[in-house]
Amino acid sequence: MASQKCFSKGSPPPGPVPEGKIRIYSMRFCPFAHRARLVLNAKGIEHDIININLRDKPEWFLEMNPLGLVPTLETAAGEVVYESPITCEYLDEVYPEKKLLPSDPFGKAQQKMMMEHFSKVTPYFYKIPTAKTKGEDISGLEAELKEKFAKLNEDLVNKKTQYFAGDAITMIDYMMWPFFERLETFDLEHCLDNTPQLKKWKQQMQEDPAVKASGHSVNTYKAYYTTYFEGNPNFDYGL
Amino acid sequence: MASQKCFSKGSPPPGPVPEGKIRIYSMRFCPFAHRARLVLNAKGIEHDIININLRDKPEWFLEMNPLGLVPTLETAAGEVVYESPITCEYLDEVYPEKKLLPSDPFGKAQQKMMMEHFSKVTPYFYKIPTAKTKGEDISGLEAELKEKFAKLNEDLVNKKTQYFAGDAITMIDYMMWPFFERLETFDLEHCLDNTPQLKKWKQQMQEDPAVKASGHSVNTYKAYYTTYFEGNPNFDYGL
Repeated sequence: MASQKCFSKGSPPPGPVPEGKIRIYSMRFCPFAHRARLVLNAKGIEHDIININLRDKPEWFLEMNPLGLVPTLETAAGEVVYESPITCEYLDEVYPEKKLLPSDPFGKAQQKMMMEHFSKVTPYFYKIPTAKTKGEDISGLEAELKEKFAKLNEDLVNKKTQYFAGDAITMIDYMMWPFFERLETFDLEHCLDNTPQLKKWKQQMQEDPAVKASGHSVNTYKAYYTTYFEGNPNFDYGL
Repeated sequence: MASQKCFSKGSPPPGPVPEGKIRIYSMRFCPFAHRARLVLNAKGIEHDIININLRDKPEWFLEMNPLGLVPTLETAAGEVVYESPITCEYLDEVYPEKKLLPSDPFGKAQQKMMMEHFSKVTPYFYKIPTAKTKGEDISGLEAELKEKFAKLNEDLVNKKTQYFAGDAITMIDYMMWPFFERLETFDLEHCLDNTPQLKKWKQQMQEDPAVKASGHSVNTYKAYYTTYFEGNPNFDYGL
């Protein structure tokens, strides 16, 4: 994955988005931006990537997206879209090749309800490493995370499918993936010990070309997250 | 608005959804369920309403929706959809008459981004009356709410439109409405004093037939919310 160093406060704006491309404002280690990069890669969408220093954001970036968050998309026509589920659905609608969301309203609603449930899982990927950094006992948090994983496992068992909405990868799998990719980094891999279907899902996801094209090695994550939880994130680590 | 008293823990299940209808599980004063009822009324969708006692939920309801929240939709085919933005989008897709969301991906993304911004406004409708009930000073919270209203006002001014996505009511207006309908009940009407465009929007919304069909009088809201903030909500008030 070719990458440019972050744009920070004071950086000149990157100029217009080239015709025929879409631009993503990203940060290489952000799990939410990771979602949009997975969708871009899965659908084979031509894009350029502008990395943003999330602790020292360029003025023009905050003007474009007042929430100042990644992922943010910008089109050649100057349209701006942000918030990871909104960007991903937008990409799926604009680029009809390899649809990731079902076209029937109930199937789509089901994916969004799964997302809603999963939004209760993502905070553990911040809370657990933070508690650990402070030297706090994390066994309670880990037990809660295991319970959430047990429900996801049960979902796969009940559905009798390899992925969360069938036997092929769809949007919901990519929305969940960035957090599972970080399990080993946070020493949480053991939380999958009693959820064999979910563990199998993770192994299968790892073989997906878009997953391979969008992520980092455990060593790279570990090095980055060490700087992050020490309070001084090195967004350009490895470049 | 014809209404049945709440179903509580121990109530028998209401039976199957009649063919040709959709059912909404609601609570008459819940602003989130209100959103879905606005959409049902605006689109003229045949529906029946089952009110739920949110402090003492029927077992079959929790089985159907593990989050136990209203609105929840159930179709004659047994499909279940919950979370207010998901239910409203589902209704708009399944019932194509009087579309409330734009069909172009960017227009739809814009509505969702507005919703995301508005999700930072809704907590004030809980925080301010709660603080008031406790006899706390609410001037700081009111000032914050006024700032949010100023941004909404600016949005209408910049767009030069009567409603938030054009000169006709669309989904985003209905998503925001239930909170504005409760402004007077919570003695927050004065927060609109310096936002004339937003005030005008509110006045126009009040004339909408779906708005008229879906709400309650200020007196009814006041009586209900008194019981609510005293900790003993009378979900069946007025029936």
